Amino acid sequence: MGHRVGIVGFRGYSGEDLIRLLSPRPEMELFLMEHRADSQDRARPRGYTGPARIPCTAEALRASGIDVVFLATPADVSMDLTPWILEAGAKVIDLSGAFRLGTAENYRRWYKEEHTQAALLQQAVYGLPEFHREKIRAARLLSNPGCYPTAANLAIAPLVEAGIVDRGAGVVCDAKSGVSGAGRKPSLKTSYCEVTENFSAYSLLDHRHVPEVLRNSGLDEAEFSFTAHLLPLDRGILETIYFRTLNISSADEIVAIYEKRYAGEPFVRIYNPGQVPDLRAIQRTNFCDIGVQWNEGRAVVVSAIDNLVKGAAGQAIQNMNLMLGLPEEAGLL
Amino acid sequence: MGHRVGIVGFRGYSGEDLIRLLSPRPEMELFLMEHRADSQDRARPRGYTGPARIPCTAEALRASGIDVVFLATPADVSMDLTPWILEAGAKVIDLSGAFRLGTAENYRRWYKEEHTQAALLQQAVYGLPEFHREKIRAARLLSNPGCYPTAANLAIAPLVEAGIVDRGAGVVCDAKSGVSGAGRKPSLKTSYCEVTENFSAYSLLDHRHVPEVLRNSGLDEAEFSFTAHLLPLDRGILETIYFRTLNISSADEIVAIYEKRYAGEPFVRIYNPGQVPDLRAIQRTNFCDIGVQWNEGRAVVVSAIDNLVKGAAGQAIQNMNLMLGLPEEAGLL
Amino acid sequence: MGHRVGIVGFRGYSGEDLIRLLSPRPEMELFLMEHRADSQDRARPRGYTGPARIPCTAEALRASGIDVVFLATPADVSMDLTPWILEAGAKVIDLSGAFRLGTAENYRRWYKEEHTQAALLQQAVYGLPEFHREKIRAARLLSNPGCYPTAANLAIAPLVEAGIVDRGAGVVCDAKSGVSGAGRKPSLKTSYCEVTENFSAYSLLDHRHVPEVLRNSGLDEAEFSFTAHLLPLDRGILETIYFRTLNISSADEIVAIYEKRYAGEPFVRIYNPGQVPDLRAIQRTNFCDIGVQWNEGRAVVVSAIDNLVKGAAGQAIQNMNLMLGLPEEAGLL
Amino acid sequence: MGHRVGIVGFRGYSGEDLIRLLSPRPEMELFLMEHRADSQDRARPRGYTGPARIPCTAEALRASGIDVVFLATPADVSMDLTPWILEAGAKVIDLSGAFRLGTAENYRRWYKEEHTQAALLQQAVYGLPEFHREKIRAARLLSNPGCYPTAANLAIAPLVEAGIVDRGAGVVCDAKSGVSGAGRKPSLKTSYCEVTENFSAYSLLDHRHVPEVLRNSGLDEAEFSFTAHLLPLDRGILETIYFRTLNISSADEIVAIYEKRYAGEPFVRIYNPGQVPDLRAIQRTNFCDIGVQWNEGRAVVVSAIDNLVKGAAGQAIQNMNLMLGLPEEAGLL
Repeated sequence: MGHRVGIVGFRGYSGEDLIRLLSPRPEMELFLMEHRADSQDRARPRGYTGPARIPCTAEALRASGIDVVFLATPADVSMDLTPWILEAGAKVIDLSGAFRLGTAENYRRWYKEEHTQAALLQQAVYGLPEFHREKIRAARLLSNPGCYPTAANLAIAPLVEAGIVDRGAGVVCDAKSGVSGAGRKPSLKTSYCEVTENFSAYSLLDHRHVPEVLRNSGLDEAEFSFTAHLLPLDRGILETIYFRTLNISSADEIVAIYEKRYAGEPFVRIYNPGQVPDLRAIQRTNFCDIGVQWNEGRAVVVSAIDNLVKGAAGQAIQNMNLMLGLPEEAGLL
Repeated sequence: MGHRVGIVGFRGYSGEDLIRLLSPRPEMELFLMEHRADSQDRARPRGYTGPARIPCTAEALRASGIDVVFLATPADVSMDLTPWILEAGAKVIDLSGAFRLGTAENYRRWYKEEHTQAALLQQAVYGLPEFHREKIRAARLLSNPGCYPTAANLAIAPLVEAGIVDRGAGVVCDAKSGVSGAGRKPSLKTSYCEVTENFSAYSLLDHRHVPEVLRNSGLDEAEFSFTAHLLPLDRGILETIYFRTLNISSADEIVAIYEKRYAGEPFVRIYNPGQVPDLRAIQRTNFCDIGVQWNEGRAVVVSAIDNLVKGAAGQAIQNMNLMLGLPEEAGLL
Repeated sequence: MGHRVGIVGFRGYSGEDLIRLLSPRPEMELFLMEHRADSQDRARPRGYTGPARIPCTAEALRASGIDVVFLATPADVSMDLTPWILEAGAKVIDLSGAFRLGTAENYRRWYKEEHTQAALLQQAVYGLPEFHREKIRAARLLSNPGCYPTAANLAIAPLVEAGIVDRGAGVVCDAKSGVSGAGRKPSLKTSYCEVTENFSAYSLLDHRHVPEVLRNSGLDEAEFSFTAHLLPLDRGILETIYFRTLNISSADEIVAIYEKRYAGEPFVRIYNPGQVPDLRAIQRTNFCDIGVQWNEGRAVVVSAIDNLVKGAAGQAIQNMNLMLGLPEEAGLL
Repeated sequence: MGHRVGIVGFRGYSGEDLIRLLSPRPEMELFLMEHRADSQDRARPRGYTGPARIPCTAEALRASGIDVVFLATPADVSMDLTPWILEAGAKVIDLSGAFRLGTAENYRRWYKEEHTQAALLQQAVYGLPEFHREKIRAARLLSNPGCYPTAANLAIAPLVEAGIVDRGAGVVCDAKSGVSGAGRKPSLKTSYCEVTENFSAYSLLDHRHVPEVLRNSGLDEAEFSFTAHLLPLDRGILETIYFRTLNISSADEIVAIYEKRYAGEPFVRIYNPGQVPDLRAIQRTNFCDIGVQWNEGRAVVVSAIDNLVKGAAGQAIQNMNLMLGLPEEAGLL
């Protein structure tokens, strides 16, 4: 038996990756839900027929018998659409930041806007399967994690949990992302001539993804220094994480902690001590790759994901698989 | 009155930038000293005549009346050439790592090779003008700083000196460099298809530039965590430096420390609190640009230079200007 | 029932794409044949196990029961290996230029070297399925076409055949390729800093791929002007082809010729008049996309392929599918 | 004696290059004329003071005593501003397409808009110094050539003039440009993720720069096939030009024609037969570099310029030098 799946925001980069990953699956029927045609369709060869297109309305949703809707939309659009989609009986997987923080207050602080659907925050499940798998299976409103926090939490949380992080000295997360993380809407900051042969830091110590890391890693705000950077490339996130260690005397011991924590996890891969992933290792895959170096009390962890896959569309599909009772890896390996 | 200047290693990227920066100066006569023709000359239009070419010998050096020789060569070549060039009466400005560390022991530890000219280490002057200007004026053997340490020391040293760095919690320097820093010799790591759309960390916690930072910043090894990364771009270094502050309650106070320390310095520029340089701001210039953010005891400093200019050829010319009694900024602004 | 497939040159870019495309197919068992370990293996996560590795010998070939061997090797290596592989009973799919030209004389002229296996030239089948499908099915030595000629022949041959090309005025093929076409071996020409932000023409009017176009398109040498260019990107070929038309009064008529010629072809796609493909349309696919513009007797055709897929590994697998009696599209859509 | 120079459109890429090239000249006083602040100023270090800013009004123009105004603006803005600037007594150097074609009818055909200042077309001088130097000296309204036509005309016109082009067989100009040619205004087509690792053809056979080539090269429309392409890089144009030759039996003869035609020209450089320029050879310079290959009646010419320098700001300054009676090369070598 198949599943009927809707996508809003299908022209954006995350939307395109949802189509790329879902199209080859025979058990999935896709519906592209036209919300605002703010971006042009790409030129296509003769005879091309993509997935069906329907209006983004409750009627069309019901008529198409859609089970689950991916929202690859800005947070304000997600807040507008979620209530009536849920009411129409479909599950929602939201890729925006709308439902990632637990309270309207926290949302206001970090997103500098009012939350218009505060009542839904309680029921939203944070979709990091390696940490919340059971809740995800039962979710009706799934909040897909941010790209930076996915790479950060998978790297940091097991070590905090294991008690080897000297939290008093603080944890530094120096994060670098490709340009597709900023979305497809044209802007000066993401124009070719501004980005090529350039590299820049932004959101120093106040990125809106910080609270997602605090909520899931166990760190306090005063313990965590995060800065984002824009890489001159299309896709990929690499985070270099620094901390001082307690009760550790080699990189091997840190690798062992990861191996134990992630045993059986299909999408987290650990490297041998002293080896670290580059972006090539994870581009166009749903893997989060993690490597470690250690030297006399100082540790460095490198965590890498594809921001559009494990950082967006891929993890969203991993969550969908769980929510629909399908094999978690389906369509992702 | 003019000066006669030799360049060994003129086909490398630092060598090319030496030619680019020195050629327009009417008071300079350039001599390209053919050491090993390991790289091809570029195709040139008809009628092109570059600087004169001479053999890399003591005879040719004397015959040409050369005052100062730039060595844009690997460390082992610099160690071979330096003794006879000094003996022939010319000053040496060495762009390699051969003479940057104070002792042969330190060199062995970080460069994993024996130093063959240990006797010269004592007289080598470390060419960071903002810190050693007077010694540089008198130098006969000038050791030009590494690219990473230049950006790091200019950013870190004034703050350690001012006592605002919580050294117990450690200083993190997350450094990113363009590919030209690896030189012009072909290698798999610097091949186009391996670098484009990729990003990688290397030399985690054990980069050979670390001891240059320790020597000049006042930090101890256990206090300093440094990791280098390879950016998919040609030229530029950006370092993001994290530490916890003592006795500081705003970014403005840190900016004030820099402004005071670098008052009158022609090649260090400070940004307003919360603003930071990108690589575009400094490419093809001899500037080191520094910006700061601060939040409740946590500080981030961004320091940016062009690795081939302030990180190599430009700083070498700044040193030459001092050594020859010329205006320090000549040919660099 | 499965097939056992060997790959020589598996560390090169074409070799990597062969592995990428063949690995997911359950009916294929791969053997990486270690010929010369001239390039390093990539860093891999713990637990990674790639395909089996065997020596590149007749014994190992027989012991593994290999049916077909891909040679992703330089022409001279292909000439060395082909005789004993055929003798050991396996079919050969050679991705080099060794067996593409019909005679040893032609090889000498364009490759500036002697052909050491002239006796095999007669039995080699040129693997452009859209033109030689039946011969390919029966081939024991398959010569996989060059990347440039694949894009050129698919675009030019149907039009020459249809008699609409004014051959007297000549056909211009301005070809641009990504850097991976030059292989993985490091060289100055393919170094990152030489390629980024640069663009250059090479092999003006004398590229060694020209005779492959002449053999298959029906053009004479004096009628065909071909120049190659190096694009600052990893993968993709785009050729812009110019000619004067006979008996044509619109782009639609040219589109109709292509549509008729390629009806039912799984890997050639035609665009509406005035629309043309970019590289994004075909990267990582086995498609050749073709678009046309026409204006008062002058026509322009744009033909685009991925040089590593339809221009190398993908077309080689398409040929393998035919040679093994498998569905032609298997593993390629 | 100094000159006072205004720039409208100073935040665009051509505007930035005007500032970059004019700022170091002590005899020039710059005024940035604020027309529409549609783009943001870049972040600058503390203490940065750029050129003076004045409103874009006749009053401010007169009050500042400005001699000449550069219009680095879209064509419609140039048409709006030119009349009152001329009336206020300043000369105009317009970098847009507004005044490049001789008639309003021609403008309507190629720019698909009405010309609002047709009366000024007659007095506009086309600023290609190698062909119209004397008229340029006397110009009050200078129309700076398009980037594509500059590279094309310098390469084609001397050969048509010399009678070696077989015009009946047609001339093909396959042109490739960096992204900065499209200006600084954000658009999907020039967004980083759309351009990187991509390459595309546009304006096939109907680019608006075509009539500039026809006017200056001596070719008829039916003889000239031009297609533009977008390169994934910031700056540079390379055009590959194909034609069949008459009365020529070697590349040397073509080189000789260029050498004779451009003897004494400061900004045109010719290569030895068989050698051609790449973009690196001309980036950030005002040179047009030309190389030739020939083979049995077929010729290929490669012509390369920096689209922002010889293709825009540099040529505009070359024209300004002529109009103000300054040395033509001032500030450009």
